[in-house]
Amino acid sequence: MVRKGVLLVLSGPSGSGKGTLVKEYTKKHDDVFVSVSATTRSPREGEVHGVNYFFLTVEEFKGKIEENGFLEYAQFCDNFYGTPRESVEKKLNEGMDVILEIDVQGALQVKKNCPDAVLVFTLPPSYEVLRERLIGRGTESMEVVEKRLSAATDEIKCAEKYDYVIVNDKIEDAARELGAIFSASKCKLENNIDFIKEF
Amino acid sequence: MVRKGVLLVLSGPSGSGKGTLVKEYTKKHDDVFVSVSATTRSPREGEVHGVNYFFLTVEEFKGKIEENGFLEYAQFCDNFYGTPRESVEKKLNEGMDVILEIDVQGALQVKKNCPDAVLVFTLPPSYEVLRERLIGRGTESMEVVEKRLSAATDEIKCAEKYDYVIVNDKIEDAARELGAIFSASKCKLENNIDFIKEF
Repeated sequence: MVRKGVLLVLSGPSGSGKGTLVKEYTKKHDDVFVSVSATTRSPREGEVHGVNYFFLTVEEFKGKIEENGFLEYAQFCDNFYGTPRESVEKKLNEGMDVILEIDVQGALQVKKNCPDAVLVFTLPPSYEVLRERLIGRGTESMEVVEKRLSAATDEIKCAEKYDYVIVNDKIEDAARELGAIFSASKCKLENNIDFIKEF
Repeated sequence: MVRKGVLLVLSGPSGSGKGTLVKEYTKKHDDVFVSVSATTRSPREGEVHGVNYFFLTVEEFKGKIEENGFLEYAQFCDNFYGTPRESVEKKLNEGMDVILEIDVQGALQVKKNCPDAVLVFTLPPSYEVLRERLIGRGTESMEVVEKRLSAATDEIKCAEKYDYVIVNDKIEDAARELGAIFSASKCKLENNIDFIKEF
């Protein structure tokens, strides 16, 4: 019998470095599948279907909603975003771990649909570092930076509904902690109850 | 501020290899304190006070009970056994992780007194392996082996009250899992709630 993989949901404010964390982790682990979200928004310059997003029409997206094809979905500014259910469940059943890098609302929807999901919130070491990281990108106006900081404050309020917190200071440490959370999750009682009963 | 260490309680039937697991883990980690139990039984050949046990008189032991000096204690066959509270709390407050290698009843007492304690149950990969390990020791009669197997069955029933299960097949893997449980425990929401609030 193949042991099911761990479904890990990673959230954190813009500037918390969750994208970098996922890249660092997957660089060293090939037994993990990073889910690609679906969206109805138009691809931006350089974005590739199936890599950055699955770009769907509104009709296609609504069709998938009808057939319960999303683990979670939401609408922002006229566009739909969602996590395709089938690929995630297939990988989990094959024994692969899965990472969903999604926002707080989506994460809580996933937890409702999949109570076994492990929710991890990433944070920079301090508010000042978050601010510096957002300003440091240099790609956004101060107005956008302030907006992101305010959004971050709202998101962080939801962190208390998560299972784990990773303080993303040194990326190697953060990746090691992510790995520890995967390993420990496999040891959790709930995932070994059949083994105990058989024993 | 020093971050408090993790209190990890390790139990498992005789033959589950929990002693070997602790040795393997502490070989590679010097930031962990393995608590030494106190007992009123007489030292056996080669046992050293403060290493194998703290050997106390019944009066000393009862005195310590009176002053709430044990995290847990119990009486077996006229002898008292207990986990001294002070040294454990001191190490935790200094930021060190602590391992208690104690039996199921003691573990549940600790969990009651210290709800943050992480309970880990070790099991061999199968009942057959457990049997072979106990016979293989060659130091016990078949009667004792059968008694231990029956005790193991009782203990395993309590495993469902534990947080984690480590299947002790390859010792290096088991030690790695123990490390992952320590690391993940530090990332648990409960241990980061102050950080989030401050943020």
